[in-house]
Amino acid sequence: MTVKEVTAAFVIIGNEILSGRTKDANLNYLATFLNERGIQLREVRVIPDITATIVETVNELRAKFDYLFTSGGIGPTHDDITSASIAAAFGTEVYRHPDAEKVLFDQYVPEDRTPARMKMADVPRGATLIDNPVSKAPGFRIENVFTLAGVPKIFQAMLDELAADLVGGEPVKSVTVTTNLGEGVVAEGLEVIQNDYPDMDIGSYPFFRSGVFGTSLVMRSTSEDDLESAAEKVRGLIRSLGQEPLEGELSKDD
Amino acid sequence: MTVKEVTAAFVIIGNEILSGRTKDANLNYLATFLNERGIQLREVRVIPDITATIVETVNELRAKFDYLFTSGGIGPTHDDITSASIAAAFGTEVYRHPDAEKVLFDQYVPEDRTPARMKMADVPRGATLIDNPVSKAPGFRIENVFTLAGVPKIFQAMLDELAADLVGGEPVKSVTVTTNLGEGVVAEGLEVIQNDYPDMDIGSYPFFRSGVFGTSLVMRSTSEDDLESAAEKVRGLIRSLGQEPLEGELSKDD
Repeated sequence: MTVKEVTAAFVIIGNEILSGRTKDANLNYLATFLNERGIQLREVRVIPDITATIVETVNELRAKFDYLFTSGGIGPTHDDITSASIAAAFGTEVYRHPDAEKVLFDQYVPEDRTPARMKMADVPRGATLIDNPVSKAPGFRIENVFTLAGVPKIFQAMLDELAADLVGGEPVKSVTVTTNLGEGVVAEGLEVIQNDYPDMDIGSYPFFRSGVFGTSLVMRSTSEDDLESAAEKVRGLIRSLGQEPLEGELSKDD
Repeated sequence: MTVKEVTAAFVIIGNEILSGRTKDANLNYLATFLNERGIQLREVRVIPDITATIVETVNELRAKFDYLFTSGGIGPTHDDITSASIAAAFGTEVYRHPDAEKVLFDQYVPEDRTPARMKMADVPRGATLIDNPVSKAPGFRIENVFTLAGVPKIFQAMLDELAADLVGGEPVKSVTVTTNLGEGVVAEGLEVIQNDYPDMDIGSYPFFRSGVFGTSLVMRSTSEDDLESAAEKVRGLIRSLGQEPLEGELSKDD
């Protein structure tokens, strides 16, 4: 590996995910977004709307990884405690950011400028704003922590806004070879290939769809040469077991 | 609260979730399954296929919560390291469980009984098996830790198998009142209601669908009386703001 690995973690803040009410839709989007930029998502946590839990989790993960992203809890209601909690994690407090205040002031007609809505202009001291092109109330960055909205449309729009601020490593590329052979049939030969490429991540993912079983073998590496030679060995393994390898994804796991 | 709270955590083990290749489909299923049984899911982590990370995470969370569930990494290939890692977390090792061996032996014709497949009969010493009605290779339980397959169909079937072993607290019920008012409009009055019911979890979830904005107000409590009286106050709040409250979910967040 010639380029330093760049790592990230993601904290999803929300009782509604833990209770099953809401399905998270941000994890997969962020994982793909980071992967394309050479940033390796290493850990995700889903935690409740409890200040002490947010503070502890943010402080652990921002020290451990290059970037930390959070989603959820930056709206106008009493259960939106993320901004104050992030401030506490940094040993500071929130203040009314003048640019955020102006954005919200311009967004609402006078009778809609409720104290609750204007509270969305409160961010930790030292934070810079992340634009929200969907509904205006901004996210923010403080040091290596990016605090985004939980609503997927806004989360995604904020990611696009901050993309230029992220410095990635060499992107990890992948090659997928698919077979109708079972995992248990390819396992032994696959382990030999994995041992030939100790720095490569070779994953084996069984699938079952429309009555057809099979296995997707996914090689991930920053080296295209290694990827192609490993893929050729995997294709050879499948042929040696009496099948013709299939390229790409036949199916996501289901 | 008359009944002790029963809590749980969930560890999703899988590089494929972190890279964005695979969308997790188990979190929401487990959250709903536990919620229905009066077990409160308090934390979820997604971690990579790295033994030290699995050991550390499992030991932290099994001490902190009543139950811990894991998904992924119990198949036949080299990247399936969950069973050995759980064993290490408990200071023990895997052994070939005779009942699991028999299940796999009966499942496969002789030429399909590969060493890789038979390895799926290896579980930590002290573990009891969790039946897998889909593809036979079992999960297992050791103390308060339940180790399940990652493939959603199998994960769900294993949960059904182990359901009788779980002891839950009083189920948390919920009432949802929906309005086309924005969060920022109801926020102030909602906080007053929250303060009247300090033990109740009142969440506010904005939605936007087909060009219509609105807010779902979700009250969660073990007390149906409290739920109904709080819901009536929320309905009153909405009426005082000039709208007729709508019952139930108009829309999930999107």
